[in-house]
Amino acid sequence: MGEFDLIKRFFTRATPRAVLGVGDDCALLQPKPGMQMAISTDMLVSGRHFFADVDPRALGHKALAVNLSDLAACGASPLAFTLALSLPQADEAWLEPFSQGLLALADLHGCELVGGDTTKGPLNICITVFGEVPVGQALLRSGARAGDDVYASGTLGDASLALAQLLAQRNGDAAPLPLCAEDMALARQRLEWPTPRLALGLALRGVATAAADISDGLLGDLGHILERSGVGATLDTAKALGLLGAPHRSAQAAAQLGEPAMRERLLQHVLSGGDDYELVFTAAPGQRDAVQAAARASQTPVTRIGQIEATPGLRLLDAQGQLLAQRFQSFDHFGASA
Amino acid sequence: MGEFDLIKRFFTRATPRAVLGVGDDCALLQPKPGMQMAISTDMLVSGRHFFADVDPRALGHKALAVNLSDLAACGASPLAFTLALSLPQADEAWLEPFSQGLLALADLHGCELVGGDTTKGPLNICITVFGEVPVGQALLRSGARAGDDVYASGTLGDASLALAQLLAQRNGDAAPLPLCAEDMALARQRLEWPTPRLALGLALRGVATAAADISDGLLGDLGHILERSGVGATLDTAKALGLLGAPHRSAQAAAQLGEPAMRERLLQHVLSGGDDYELVFTAAPGQRDAVQAAARASQTPVTRIGQIEATPGLRLLDAQGQLLAQRFQSFDHFGASA
Repeated sequence: MGEFDLIKRFFTRATPRAVLGVGDDCALLQPKPGMQMAISTDMLVSGRHFFADVDPRALGHKALAVNLSDLAACGASPLAFTLALSLPQADEAWLEPFSQGLLALADLHGCELVGGDTTKGPLNICITVFGEVPVGQALLRSGARAGDDVYASGTLGDASLALAQLLAQRNGDAAPLPLCAEDMALARQRLEWPTPRLALGLALRGVATAAADISDGLLGDLGHILERSGVGATLDTAKALGLLGAPHRSAQAAAQLGEPAMRERLLQHVLSGGDDYELVFTAAPGQRDAVQAAARASQTPVTRIGQIEATPGLRLLDAQGQLLAQRFQSFDHFGASA
Repeated sequence: MGEFDLIKRFFTRATPRAVLGVGDDCALLQPKPGMQMAISTDMLVSGRHFFADVDPRALGHKALAVNLSDLAACGASPLAFTLALSLPQADEAWLEPFSQGLLALADLHGCELVGGDTTKGPLNICITVFGEVPVGQALLRSGARAGDDVYASGTLGDASLALAQLLAQRNGDAAPLPLCAEDMALARQRLEWPTPRLALGLALRGVATAAADISDGLLGDLGHILERSGVGATLDTAKALGLLGAPHRSAQAAAQLGEPAMRERLLQHVLSGGDDYELVFTAAPGQRDAVQAAARASQTPVTRIGQIEATPGLRLLDAQGQLLAQRFQSFDHFGASA
């Protein structure tokens, strides 16, 4: 199957909102008056961001989800995206479920596929996504102020737990945490089918002072907010442990949480695990009710886990309010391989 | 060097025209009132679109040039671009000249780097480019009408000639055409440092009825215009041979052009060679003066090479006006490898 047939068959769709979609040299978008266009791009590489044998339907979903997550972090609503795809061969048995997973999520958020490129090469998926946000209302990383509360949405750590378990399985190593099959399925769902927090991002416009999505780990992504805002923060790790996802809590119970090494391992997943695609954001203490209203409106739980301070740096407190030495690192795409 | 240091060092620049550039979850662009945003994306893969050992400065130039060429084909002016880069390692000796070649062309056209992604993996460069064009003035592939003239800009065939010579060299085969070192340097310049025809694209707004850039070969890209416009065309191959670039003309002289096999080989490069990044476009016969004025204003030669007809299909005429059998194929990115 040639490049053009392939595009036509799996990726050419009606684009009622775009002025012009797939099939010309460029796509054309017409932003509404008073709107700015938010743009983000993410590249997913086989063996690095996903296993080569991952379910292609899940991969299609995730490739778009990680981009939509950036729009969510800006409080932007999705408009359209482009897809560039490098494939070892034009394999219909892979392309069909990949395009289904991708386009199902696109349809859910009214995000139109308006253009792209396909080529032969090592499997690589590059999506660029376009959203719109009213002028001046985008949530930026740079708006956090001393005194603001720090929040995270949803649960954290399950995706990195699932990855650690899968890697151990593949290498024939012992499982890092004791998990039943059902809990592993839940954790794996979080790794492979992330939910972009678009509704929360929209609801936080005018409420949050700064936001970022958690793709590389809570500490790393909060770190970007601190750096861009020129502030520091203190995190309550006891509250952060409350962000543990269901499989973690189950592992916790199984391991009699009190055990310090287990507690530290769980905290590591919560603070530094990548691939959660939750939001970390800040808001003034006077907005606590508004933050909870945004959480309810978007049906997305949020947890207050710390405070912004003028002193630069990120400080972690234990349940007794004592400073923890910082042993946690965020994910770096030139660091250890997935 | 980590991902974030790398981005900062080589790719973070002031973005005076964008509302927000590199460093947040999204970039923000604010299109001017009455403008549509033109978007295109291209992915370049090592061993497929370029040799792994190509000059990284040339590669940086070309990666952006092929995207700007799509804006040119739409008559759009460049605004900004994103860069997603997969690299085997964060090699400064490669990144520095790559970023210089990329950003020099970006500066030339006022096209700001507003965001991106870097990751470890097989070398892959994915650029998405944004331009603007007044509402309703974009040049589309779908506007050609029976009776229109067909034009091509610049010269055709040198890039594919250079590629054929380089491949023959690498395989230890005989050179496909007799070329002196100087001519080979000229041909290679066309392959590695293409010129996006942005000024011509702008000048053709309101003049051309349809346009496309020639990335996969004249016949293939004109074919897209014909298909989208629901028309056919006849090309005068004697005129098309006039599009031969300098090295071709020199090879022609050396080989005593009259020789039919040589003539056919040259015609093959002109009609089906990829990577020229010239424009093929159509305009009503009443616009011939306007087309030549656009060519002069943009300092880009254009040649009239055929005519649009209501009958579908693409017909090639020889110098005697006789139909040539069609032996020419356009480049397919899932066809033979570069």
